[in-house]
Amino acid sequence: MTSALPPPEPRNQVDDPSSPVARFGADEPLMLDAGVPLAPWQIAYQTYGTLNAERSNAILVCHALTGDQHVANPNPVTGKPGWWTTMVGPSKPLDTDRFFVICANVIGGCMGTTGPASTDPRTGQPYALDFPVITIRDMVRAQAALIDRLGIESLFCVVGGSMGGMQVLQWAASYPERVFAALPIATAARHSAQNIAFHEVGRQAVMADPDWRGGRYLVEGTRPAKGLAVARMGAHITYLSEMALHRKFGRNYQDRSAPTFSFDADFQIESYLRYQGLSFVERFDANSYLYVTRAMDYFDLAAEHGGSLARAFKGSATRFCVISFSSDWLFPTADSRAIVHALNAAAASVAFVEVESDKGHDAFLLDEPEMFAAARGFIDAAARARGLS
Amino acid sequence: MTSALPPPEPRNQVDDPSSPVARFGADEPLMLDAGVPLAPWQIAYQTYGTLNAERSNAILVCHALTGDQHVANPNPVTGKPGWWTTMVGPSKPLDTDRFFVICANVIGGCMGTTGPASTDPRTGQPYALDFPVITIRDMVRAQAALIDRLGIESLFCVVGGSMGGMQVLQWAASYPERVFAALPIATAARHSAQNIAFHEVGRQAVMADPDWRGGRYLVEGTRPAKGLAVARMGAHITYLSEMALHRKFGRNYQDRSAPTFSFDADFQIESYLRYQGLSFVERFDANSYLYVTRAMDYFDLAAEHGGSLARAFKGSATRFCVISFSSDWLFPTADSRAIVHALNAAAASVAFVEVESDKGHDAFLLDEPEMFAAARGFIDAAARARGLS
Repeated sequence: MTSALPPPEPRNQVDDPSSPVARFGADEPLMLDAGVPLAPWQIAYQTYGTLNAERSNAILVCHALTGDQHVANPNPVTGKPGWWTTMVGPSKPLDTDRFFVICANVIGGCMGTTGPASTDPRTGQPYALDFPVITIRDMVRAQAALIDRLGIESLFCVVGGSMGGMQVLQWAASYPERVFAALPIATAARHSAQNIAFHEVGRQAVMADPDWRGGRYLVEGTRPAKGLAVARMGAHITYLSEMALHRKFGRNYQDRSAPTFSFDADFQIESYLRYQGLSFVERFDANSYLYVTRAMDYFDLAAEHGGSLARAFKGSATRFCVISFSSDWLFPTADSRAIVHALNAAAASVAFVEVESDKGHDAFLLDEPEMFAAARGFIDAAARARGLS
Repeated sequence: MTSALPPPEPRNQVDDPSSPVARFGADEPLMLDAGVPLAPWQIAYQTYGTLNAERSNAILVCHALTGDQHVANPNPVTGKPGWWTTMVGPSKPLDTDRFFVICANVIGGCMGTTGPASTDPRTGQPYALDFPVITIRDMVRAQAALIDRLGIESLFCVVGGSMGGMQVLQWAASYPERVFAALPIATAARHSAQNIAFHEVGRQAVMADPDWRGGRYLVEGTRPAKGLAVARMGAHITYLSEMALHRKFGRNYQDRSAPTFSFDADFQIESYLRYQGLSFVERFDANSYLYVTRAMDYFDLAAEHGGSLARAFKGSATRFCVISFSSDWLFPTADSRAIVHALNAAAASVAFVEVESDKGHDAFLLDEPEMFAAARGFIDAAARARGLS
């Protein structure tokens, strides 16, 4: 009659990221906003296309909360296509025949970059909660070190949606001279109270799972799969619009036309959410989920600049294109407008497109021709301005 | 550094509801939509004011998901004031100097009415998941039996918000001749896919708690407090508007002005949600939470009438007043408009008020003068029409 979620097989991509890895030794610490150095550390990344002789055609793609570096190649864990093959590839808006596209797993992640599942050199065991709390700016610092390592002085463009968009904004604020063009999508310059609230519920779901073991599940041989699945289910609702849920599932029953009067997944939406929870825990580390959600919560770009978002972009020569989606209630268009207003106040170059879509926040990952057209137009114009063929 | 939620003391109000109780024996079963009889059964209720000689001044208040019968007296479990003292009392819109106000704990609840924590006569142990799945219509059937027991043929008015509003609509559809006036607030004639989704996440959080024990926690002496607290935290977000969260909490830190770089409740919104979760588990039964959310999920009044909501109200002489709140995204105004359209199509008498409020779904429980004025005007006019002084 009931159906609790079974635990999946554990995965650990830290030692086998199936990607190139840039390693930084004890003498090259990553200085974190928390005030502590991280060393040694590493960052796993993928590249697509060819860096030109002038090293002027590099695009950095920043991934979202549960994304990774496998933006346009099959994911080694799930076997599924890369998460943004609609945007990145030959003849796509981020055209790998013209541009050198880089995507790196974020600091705190679990796909090869140093995170809470990595080995703490002081103990020889996984960091777990001894890993320092990281921020969006720390993620960007790590990416900048990677870009240095790759010998790239200035990025042609930084692109990303959701948490990826936060990184785009942070790049533009922290390293304006290294960002020719910036394309933040479905994002905000600060995480809202409601979004912090949803994240907190997800973290509490993970921490309430006794198999979380105070974060030490890797050492103790357990896995907080049920808690993480519940967290993912709740988060997933926020990625879709009410309209998208209604259209996809409505009140349709699963495999029958009447209720079973039970707690089985009677409705299709229930079955869908359970599947989302179960498949997520097979590919994501629970502690990484805590750390990366926390980084988003702490994000408030204006706070770094005396409360003025415009000051974050003052004097910037970067050209911006801001894209939002009309049915996105997690990062609503008002958040994007606030970015645009700040850029206007900073006299920066900015275009703004609100894409009409009923698909909610997830629209940035989906087939949205208006987004593709806006991105393509912006990228092509920026490429001409930079003298790229 | 971390803070999982501690389990509270268990409570069981089934045997001590601190209320009058109407008991129905083995020969008076409650026939349920699931197709099974429930017997024996009981329903706990409170009354306020005096029934007049004509028995024509009775108002039934229907409570929401986690409400109870203690609408206008101190709650015996929490010691807090009744949950709707703004609406019910002397000189209040539901004026207990003029009307006889009744409120009963719903079937499946945990404040004295038969529910999953009640003793199963077949086993002598709590029903747990052997309790039949109940529906909104079952709740209303039980209330009708109580009204019979109280010797009331026809209710002057049935009133309720959220799940209480669903019961109001069900009353008007099932017993039109027994409902003179109906006041559904912040509700819908069917539960949306998004709302089913949020409920399912809450149920999975409860069921993922190993202390839930397949529902047998009362027998086994455990309590799925952590899972239930997570469920409540998630649900609570949906009761508030993004604007209300922003105004009340924003990104304010708890007791300090800077982040702690930890997983403590750094933000005020986190501390608030944790408190909501903890205080809830002290007063509510986890299995009741499963059953009552399930009843809401199954609610689809049109489905009982061949898919036509208008048909549910055809020929009704009941006068309706439908109230919604502009910032309620759980039961948005569009849901109330659908009710009004159906009532119009059924040629029923209906008034509609959308109250401007930024407080979200919870507004119906709060100080909303426009709601009070609308309710008072509607009740007073209906009382005149019924010849009540």
